[in-house]
Amino acid sequence: MLYHVKMTVNIPASIKKEEADELKRTEKELSQRLQKEGKWKHIWRIAGHYANYSIFDVKDNEELHDLLMQLPLFPYMEIEVNALCKHPSSII
Amino acid sequence: MLYHVKMTVNIPASIKKEEADELKRTEKELSQRLQKEGKWKHIWRIAGHYANYSIFDVKDNEELHDLLMQLPLFPYMEIEVNALCKHPSSII
Amino acid sequence: MLYHVKMTVNIPASIKKEEADELKRTEKELSQRLQKEGKWKHIWRIAGHYANYSIFDVKDNEELHDLLMQLPLFPYMEIEVNALCKHPSSII
Amino acid sequence: MLYHVKMTVNIPASIKKEEADELKRTEKELSQRLQKEGKWKHIWRIAGHYANYSIFDVKDNEELHDLLMQLPLFPYMEIEVNALCKHPSSII
Amino acid sequence: MLYHVKMTVNIPASIKKEEADELKRTEKELSQRLQKEGKWKHIWRIAGHYANYSIFDVKDNEELHDLLMQLPLFPYMEIEVNALCKHPSSII
Amino acid sequence: MLYHVKMTVNIPASIKKEEADELKRTEKELSQRLQKEGKWKHIWRIAGHYANYSIFDVKDNEELHDLLMQLPLFPYMEIEVNALCKHPSSII
Amino acid sequence: MLYHVKMTVNIPASIKKEEADELKRTEKELSQRLQKEGKWKHIWRIAGHYANYSIFDVKDNEELHDLLMQLPLFPYMEIEVNALCKHPSSII
Amino acid sequence: MLYHVKMTVNIPASIKKEEADELKRTEKELSQRLQKEGKWKHIWRIAGHYANYSIFDVKDNEELHDLLMQLPLFPYMEIEVNALCKHPSSII
Amino acid sequence: MLYHVKMTVNIPASIKKEEADELKRTEKELSQRLQKEGKWKHIWRIAGHYANYSIFDVKDNEELHDLLMQLPLFPYMEIEVNALCKHPSSII
Amino acid sequence: MLYHVKMTVNIPASIKKEEADELKRTEKELSQRLQKEGKWKHIWRIAGHYANYSIFDVKDNEELHDLLMQLPLFPYMEIEVNALCKHPSSII
Repeated sequence: MLYHVKMTVNIPASIKKEEADELKRTEKELSQRLQKEGKWKHIWRIAGHYANYSIFDVKDNEELHDLLMQLPLFPYMEIEVNALCKHPSSII
Repeated sequence: MLYHVKMTVNIPASIKKEEADELKRTEKELSQRLQKEGKWKHIWRIAGHYANYSIFDVKDNEELHDLLMQLPLFPYMEIEVNALCKHPSSII
Repeated sequence: MLYHVKMTVNIPASIKKEEADELKRTEKELSQRLQKEGKWKHIWRIAGHYANYSIFDVKDNEELHDLLMQLPLFPYMEIEVNALCKHPSSII
Repeated sequence: MLYHVKMTVNIPASIKKEEADELKRTEKELSQRLQKEGKWKHIWRIAGHYANYSIFDVKDNEELHDLLMQLPLFPYMEIEVNALCKHPSSII
Repeated sequence: MLYHVKMTVNIPASIKKEEADELKRTEKELSQRLQKEGKWKHIWRIAGHYANYSIFDVKDNEELHDLLMQLPLFPYMEIEVNALCKHPSSII
Repeated sequence: MLYHVKMTVNIPASIKKEEADELKRTEKELSQRLQKEGKWKHIWRIAGHYANYSIFDVKDNEELHDLLMQLPLFPYMEIEVNALCKHPSSII
Repeated sequence: MLYHVKMTVNIPASIKKEEADELKRTEKELSQRLQKEGKWKHIWRIAGHYANYSIFDVKDNEELHDLLMQLPLFPYMEIEVNALCKHPSSII
Repeated sequence: MLYHVKMTVNIPASIKKEEADELKRTEKELSQRLQKEGKWKHIWRIAGHYANYSIFDVKDNEELHDLLMQLPLFPYMEIEVNALCKHPSSII
Repeated sequence: MLYHVKMTVNIPASIKKEEADELKRTEKELSQRLQKEGKWKHIWRIAGHYANYSIFDVKDNEELHDLLMQLPLFPYMEIEVNALCKHPSSII
Repeated sequence: MLYHVKMTVNIPASIKKEEADELKRTEKELSQRLQKEGKWKHIWRIAGHYANYSIFDVKDNEELHDLLMQLPLFPYMEIEVNALCKHPSSII
């Protein structure tokens, strides 16, 4: 099942650079593992923003929530979730 | 070059059913042609809404604008455009 | 799978009373059938508003979308959808 | 009498982990006691958010306010309250 | 039980003057009857606006909703409802 | 002359509990003195919020402003002011 | 007593040109009479908008409301009202 | 040339009282000098707010910007600027 | 003096195609004359929108307002105006 | 390819004056280098704001994003990006 997620990252100035770098490194690692597993189908950077649009393909709402909660940057992200369906005009 | 587009359709009640059906038929036809040409890479229905999230892959801003303006439902759509880049975590 | 849906109804003045009454009658009929089938688990009126909060229990995003699109009042409703999960504090 | 409440939790970074954990533990305890008493009828996690939709069944506005004010996380929550009524289409 | 209600009236231009005058006359009549019964405790005009702030004193959410739905101008009003409690600083 | 005032209190976490308690104690004292003088005619708690709706009855804009500025919690309140008039439907 | 008022005019397309011209003519006449009487102290056009910022000097909230309600364009204006006081830095 | 400016002051709690008092003292001094020079034509307190509406009469956009940037409280103000013209109904 | 103007066009469905075409033709003609005179320095289409960002170089607020009011599409445009200054980093 | 960018700068009070000055100095240096290279075509100060409207002329979305991310003040800016096209009325 597909979900559209917008993530906007705001790491507060009180987080030290080393900690922030470690958060980003583990975030990237987890993101790439989930991409390889086919659960995080797409991720695009929004030009000019520390933000991304992503498409998740997971079993259900529960799995989506669990994946997002695990993200190391979750506490510093504003998140918008929209459930998706196949579009009647889609050729796929 | 990639763009993220959200389209929300509002066909006013003053448009007759036949005219609306014809608009939707030609919209679908054009959408599917652009999908086959690889320019309209993705289109997803947003659950519960007469709206979609789409990804376009076009040469430049000009081509994106021209494609959107050609859509038969353009006059009845609210559109949001965001320029996209490759995300540093993307494995593609 | 559960979804939280807020529906706000705005029947335009251009719809005649008979047509509006017929829309409401068939809306109610369908709502009650879906409630009996266990798909529309809860529906509450929001005090002071022609609006409701509802909980749907359906197979997936697709089924939710199809149910909402079938509602006779769909063209006259503003809809907000949120995917739900079990809450860690819930005793149910 | 029923009320729909949305709670969005924002524990500031200045709260230490131990204190936050204690707040969450006592919040959960109180929530479950109120659920068992039938006052906190439903609680659902909103997918992708540290937030919930809840339904309270209490004697009056006063009791609702007193319950919410007692919540250990109250100072760190953004709250929206809507009074509910039986919906004319509800089969319950 | 007390509720704070803001009502903003927008009678569309398509309503004829006679009909609008009749709506206002019956609205006023009903408002004054409810005031005399003690259910519509206060009503104040907001300076510069075709709008009012009102305080209702009714048995429960159900009675509030039923009163508001009966108002002849209800279809032409934007309404905001807030449940009220006694304030700890109130001397009444 | 009447004014409708909404006050939403946000005492920052950096204020120590003793200081906050003292602010609330003096706020309550002043509020009750102004209520007894007939200048702060009504104050209601908004259910679920650390906020109130109040009605002030003062000589003019100047007196309203001076009263609000004197409130010990003024620096920590978001305030909305609306000038009121007698409503044509009011029976008082 | 002074009030700051922003008026934004939206004459609907359904009003005929002659009627709109007559409304504007009588609006201007009334505005100039109130300016001469010293009640409408200032009126400025907001560049690029069919809107104005105005300062009224009237006895009380009631008189302000009555003046605004009399304006021929009142039904077609969005209005914002703010009560003003002498500013402590003002040299007047 | 005239400009309408709304200034809303938010001095953060981290600024010490002496520093804040000194900022306000120099702000007032500069404001009064600019009023005497005829550049800051009007300043009104907005009742209930630490905010003002002001009218500036300066040579051009550049001079307006330079005046505002010089204000000691500029770093702690939210500012809205609107260019003004003579209103066709104005008798001045 | 420079101004930044955003114009968003919404021609209502009630305007006939011939009338709309004539409005667009005269709008274009006037826009190009003002561009040649150096008053409308820049105009860019916003991709995906029937909207433009423009830079005007005029004598004062009055001239800007008069130019905008003359535009044939003015009644069907939502307009935002911002006064501009030379930027301290600009090399021009 | 052209992009319209609005940048609003908010340097937090926690940044020391020397650091802020160094950020602004290097920001200006980079801005001027990019202007000389023709990539940052225009930059205007918005009167009354610590903000600018800019026009970038770059190869693609990727280059725009990379330029913006390099700006020393990027972490302290709120940014809005809009893709631009040639306007059909433009004489250039």
